[in-house]
Amino acid sequence: MKTTSIVRLALGCLLGTLVLNSAAAAPPPNIIIIFADDLGYGDLGCYGHPSIRTPNLDRMAAEGMRLTDFYVAATVCTPSRAALLTGRLPIRTGMAGSATRRVLYGVSTGGLPTNEITIATALKSKNYVTGCIGKWHLGHQPQFLPTSHGFDSYFGLLWSNDMEPDKDFKLPKGASMDLDPDPRRWKPSLFRNDRVIEQPTDQSTLTKRYTEEATKFIRENRNKPFFLYFPHTFPHVPLFASKDFKDKSPRGLYGDTVEELDWSVGQVLDTLRKEKLEENTLVFFTSDNGPWLIKELAGGSAGLLREGKGSTWEGGMREPAIAWWPKKIKAGVVSQELASSMDLFKTCLNLAGVPLPADRVMDGVDLAPILFQNGKSQRDVTFYYRGNELFAVRKGDFKAHFQTAPGYAGRRVQEKLEKHDPPLLFNLKQDTSENFDIAAKHPEVLAEIERAVETHRANLVPAEPQY
Amino acid sequence: MKTTSIVRLALGCLLGTLVLNSAAAAPPPNIIIIFADDLGYGDLGCYGHPSIRTPNLDRMAAEGMRLTDFYVAATVCTPSRAALLTGRLPIRTGMAGSATRRVLYGVSTGGLPTNEITIATALKSKNYVTGCIGKWHLGHQPQFLPTSHGFDSYFGLLWSNDMEPDKDFKLPKGASMDLDPDPRRWKPSLFRNDRVIEQPTDQSTLTKRYTEEATKFIRENRNKPFFLYFPHTFPHVPLFASKDFKDKSPRGLYGDTVEELDWSVGQVLDTLRKEKLEENTLVFFTSDNGPWLIKELAGGSAGLLREGKGSTWEGGMREPAIAWWPKKIKAGVVSQELASSMDLFKTCLNLAGVPLPADRVMDGVDLAPILFQNGKSQRDVTFYYRGNELFAVRKGDFKAHFQTAPGYAGRRVQEKLEKHDPPLLFNLKQDTSENFDIAAKHPEVLAEIERAVETHRANLVPAEPQY
Repeated sequence: MKTTSIVRLALGCLLGTLVLNSAAAAPPPNIIIIFADDLGYGDLGCYGHPSIRTPNLDRMAAEGMRLTDFYVAATVCTPSRAALLTGRLPIRTGMAGSATRRVLYGVSTGGLPTNEITIATALKSKNYVTGCIGKWHLGHQPQFLPTSHGFDSYFGLLWSNDMEPDKDFKLPKGASMDLDPDPRRWKPSLFRNDRVIEQPTDQSTLTKRYTEEATKFIRENRNKPFFLYFPHTFPHVPLFASKDFKDKSPRGLYGDTVEELDWSVGQVLDTLRKEKLEENTLVFFTSDNGPWLIKELAGGSAGLLREGKGSTWEGGMREPAIAWWPKKIKAGVVSQELASSMDLFKTCLNLAGVPLPADRVMDGVDLAPILFQNGKSQRDVTFYYRGNELFAVRKGDFKAHFQTAPGYAGRRVQEKLEKHDPPLLFNLKQDTSENFDIAAKHPEVLAEIERAVETHRANLVPAEPQY
Repeated sequence: MKTTSIVRLALGCLLGTLVLNSAAAAPPPNIIIIFADDLGYGDLGCYGHPSIRTPNLDRMAAEGMRLTDFYVAATVCTPSRAALLTGRLPIRTGMAGSATRRVLYGVSTGGLPTNEITIATALKSKNYVTGCIGKWHLGHQPQFLPTSHGFDSYFGLLWSNDMEPDKDFKLPKGASMDLDPDPRRWKPSLFRNDRVIEQPTDQSTLTKRYTEEATKFIRENRNKPFFLYFPHTFPHVPLFASKDFKDKSPRGLYGDTVEELDWSVGQVLDTLRKEKLEENTLVFFTSDNGPWLIKELAGGSAGLLREGKGSTWEGGMREPAIAWWPKKIKAGVVSQELASSMDLFKTCLNLAGVPLPADRVMDGVDLAPILFQNGKSQRDVTFYYRGNELFAVRKGDFKAHFQTAPGYAGRRVQEKLEKHDPPLLFNLKQDTSENFDIAAKHPEVLAEIERAVETHRANLVPAEPQY
């Protein structure tokens, strides 16, 4: 070996060490999860909506990654949120709901059990500052509040925005509470931490105020690692938008609220840029379930997907999903890999260097190979639960429906609650709209899916339902 | 006035003159129209398709303008092409078809009348080199050929690719000619100018060969103004893709052909860049009509739109449309303005400095305000003809259906041929999927649309049907 080679080798080792050290010394990244309420798969410009204008989310997708096959773990609000925060199927945490009660109501006394570990709780072990801004819907007894589940601070509505109605309010004859909502009809309570600070809450400024809280949280914690969980109240019905957005969208009132949500996302990203945090922050945007089609023009669109909220057809559980982290996530990539909101738990913990809980079954995988290497999903199966019943399973590109539920199709075609034996089978890559049953042609796929269900069930201990 | 001001004024005038002179001296732009066959509104990534990969068209949209409300003038092939090339409704040119024959067939003796003026004919008056590469479908008698309608050269199939079947071919039992087409079943003739050069034509290499012809045409005419009309044969059924694309798309065979089409668009744009023609060339991409839903997995998707090919519901006539002209069209703009394939005639003639024909009714407006200033459409109304019958009218955001036609819905819901009195009325910005009839709420809108129909009819002289 020549002297120059030795020098080069030594230099290489030195540089390698420096790089390693600098990696080890890098602060753990900030994480922001923005969660829309009842936003449909087809409601964003970058997912093909023709009249809702979402330049900020479109830009977020152009600068980051747009996922086409991203699922939530439930067809409605409460269980979907429980799954995102715990990385576990709602049936394991008691949050799946039942045939009679599918989400938490004001009269519910249950909530996300105190022995469940949220992303916030886990990240506290690495000294993250944790904030929750927006709709909680995981219990309102003191032990179930955000501040009891790992969040240092909370600002928002504990329930859906239609859940504290004024029972004395008389609906004027012929009035549409969906398309022309009278603010006097609802009396939602706005919480800061565990205290009500406004009642009734002015919903028209809610997105704006959430956004101010979020950008303030980012600015105040710019020198610490932080986790911000930002579940919006809209576009859940009743729809309210601030003066700057009301009557502005060609799509009407529903569009107004989505366009304000889009503005809000832009404010968050702009704040990260201004604070020079964009290269150390993962931002993930998605929605809790599909569009509330029964609300007609006040509900969203699932695009080419069949059905919406409440259904285990694709429209109920496949969501728009955008991941953003300049320089770490390649710009403008579209990933068709199978992914789930439950994967965010493992992804966040791994990013923060927190070990996974070893004492419970987890349902998520790490999204890092997809997000940072545009690689393959580590997930092969996703389960479609409706309440505490398994309705369908996707394995690879195939989805089998064991049951399909009543719901509300955009075309006013009422689906029936039906059991399917043999199950219906669709290839979701070739037939994303689930039009053409191919069960008869692929008994081997059905057999494989049935084996996956057996494995799943063998490993499943349903928890005591909380509501 | 001070001396310096006078000097400035003189200088200003001089510069103004120079700018004017340089504008006058600029060569007229090249124009390329790429026309897909049966591609649906929802079939491109940038229009929200989850499993068809169209990076080149997505990039074209990101560098140019994507239109959300772009219509063709007919629900099927022949009349749609006639309208694009002449800027006139097919009912005025004899190309609307009839109840029994909706497109030209091999037995047809008619074609686009020789007294009609195509974009190619018009641009010849300014010494444009004009080429047509792909599917013609406007008549196969000598007087109706592309070379008789203003095109210097032609390369392609005169009909749809399913129109020269081998009548002796025995379909194997259980075989699917849509999803597993046997090339021996069809014997299409490939033309160069007015001569058959291959029969039967190898369809699997057709997109590739069209593309080679197109890029050669661009390179050979790089120093002249040129007009290239590039109507593809696919994704019309039967579907064939070349070795590089066959079995590659997650969407299956249909996706293979769309992904090869996408590649072809990329080749055209790359050639323009290589030849440094991109700043003097308008490229416009769209499709002739909606997806052929009856072909099931071998047909495309209209996304959130109702119905497809053959129907006057939005899915039949609203198309993906992308305009590209670096520096002249602002990058990444989405326009919701109302536009039509018939507007390309006036747009092209104005760009080339050719006066409009004064002896006939024209149905197009100039798209320049939309394309180059992101401004308002000059079009307020669009008509939905099915054959020679007016089925529906859009005025502003509203669409009235006087009749709706049998067709084939993605959900296997068969529509009926129905007359509607009062008409159905939809607000297409708020209810793009045409789910919620609001006729009862808006009699004034219906009255306005009915007046527009009266004006239209007063001005309409249907031509002798050509087929």
